[in-house]
Amino acid sequence: MDNSKIGQHISGQFNKELEDVRNKVLTMGGLVEQQIELAVTAFSTGDVEMAELVIKQDNQVDALEVAIDHECMQILALRQPAAFDLRLLITVIKIVNELERVGDLAERVAEMAIQLTSAESSSKRDQYYELEHMAELVQNMLHGALDVFARMNIEEVAIITSLDDNVDREYGSIIRQLITRMMEDPRNITRMLDVLWIARSLERIGDHACNICDHLVYMVKGEDVRHLTQAELEEKVKG
Amino acid sequence: MDNSKIGQHISGQFNKELEDVRNKVLTMGGLVEQQIELAVTAFSTGDVEMAELVIKQDNQVDALEVAIDHECMQILALRQPAAFDLRLLITVIKIVNELERVGDLAERVAEMAIQLTSAESSSKRDQYYELEHMAELVQNMLHGALDVFARMNIEEVAIITSLDDNVDREYGSIIRQLITRMMEDPRNITRMLDVLWIARSLERIGDHACNICDHLVYMVKGEDVRHLTQAELEEKVKG
Repeated sequence: MDNSKIGQHISGQFNKELEDVRNKVLTMGGLVEQQIELAVTAFSTGDVEMAELVIKQDNQVDALEVAIDHECMQILALRQPAAFDLRLLITVIKIVNELERVGDLAERVAEMAIQLTSAESSSKRDQYYELEHMAELVQNMLHGALDVFARMNIEEVAIITSLDDNVDREYGSIIRQLITRMMEDPRNITRMLDVLWIARSLERIGDHACNICDHLVYMVKGEDVRHLTQAELEEKVKG
Repeated sequence: MDNSKIGQHISGQFNKELEDVRNKVLTMGGLVEQQIELAVTAFSTGDVEMAELVIKQDNQVDALEVAIDHECMQILALRQPAAFDLRLLITVIKIVNELERVGDLAERVAEMAIQLTSAESSSKRDQYYELEHMAELVQNMLHGALDVFARMNIEEVAIITSLDDNVDREYGSIIRQLITRMMEDPRNITRMLDVLWIARSLERIGDHACNICDHLVYMVKGEDVRHLTQAELEEKVKG
């Protein structure tokens, strides 16, 4: 399936409105992706200014959420769309909600990065490469989900959601490591809890990417797949 | 403002549909409230069967989410509502999403309750009365938010959202206590982390109750108040 479902309206103006909403969602998605990238880099390098930028960007993300929501409501009220167009607009409302929450989580990573930077020397930072790998995974998941939205290729959805098991495994392993370090030296506890919140935030970003995928399957297929197993989902999105 | 906005439609069938959706949301809300109540009691008393019931109930909550979402989409497609009716349906879609997440958090509390019960004797349980108080606070918030939905008395919203500061304060205090206990005896760490996840879940239930309030103000007033300060919100909902 491609983008051809958009662009079939007799009203050129309606087409433009839907395209505009789609573009704004992708802009918002790009901004949130950048937030995660910067937050994780700020954590790895101890760059406080970069972390502060992430926190500032959250206002932009929130403003986009409000603007897109408003635009969707206007279109729903004035155009009274049905079928695919209706699902598209409702899906957009759900996706911007997920993205706003991802933005909040990136902000949280940035806040923890600032706290950790003030608490420890940068020489200790190379200990967290597992966390950086997990960050890469969830970034790929979110990027993939946004790509599905841009190209409406929902066959890709199953690949993205299947990565969530890896994320959960890595998350579990990081938590166990953190507990070990806390036990070895209780002076580590506060710092390790900050790292734990970062791991937790990343894990939840992966969940939101999966939620976006579910919404997209609904948009394209008109079927609610939120509570299916991975195997059932794979069956559903097959080409 | 009262419920009189519903019931003005020439089509009695349309009225019935909207009433039905509203009732289902309240049923779902009641179920989620019960989940929290049981999860917290299971934690306090170490009742594993009760905790398992909470986990089972989550299927019902998920099913209600899917059913209500579907019903809203049907009404949107067939009735093409505008103004208040449109906002009501979009708000319902957002509220059931918040409630579903609250249900997941209650499930998480129940899971931690099970883990803690297998790890410690019940004589230790009276140490967590602060957590129980925090649970009470967020239960009141959620109950209040659902009451606003039932009675559409949005003046009450500001009282509910103002409680979130108390929740955050109690949450901070609980976290500091848990850290102290971990430092005093590192053998406590794993158990204290389980309690920490419970505190975190409760804190987030409070956030979801606030989100529901924001959605309800939008429904009634048509204004997006999600990113306002508490003072701005109070101004907005004044009678």
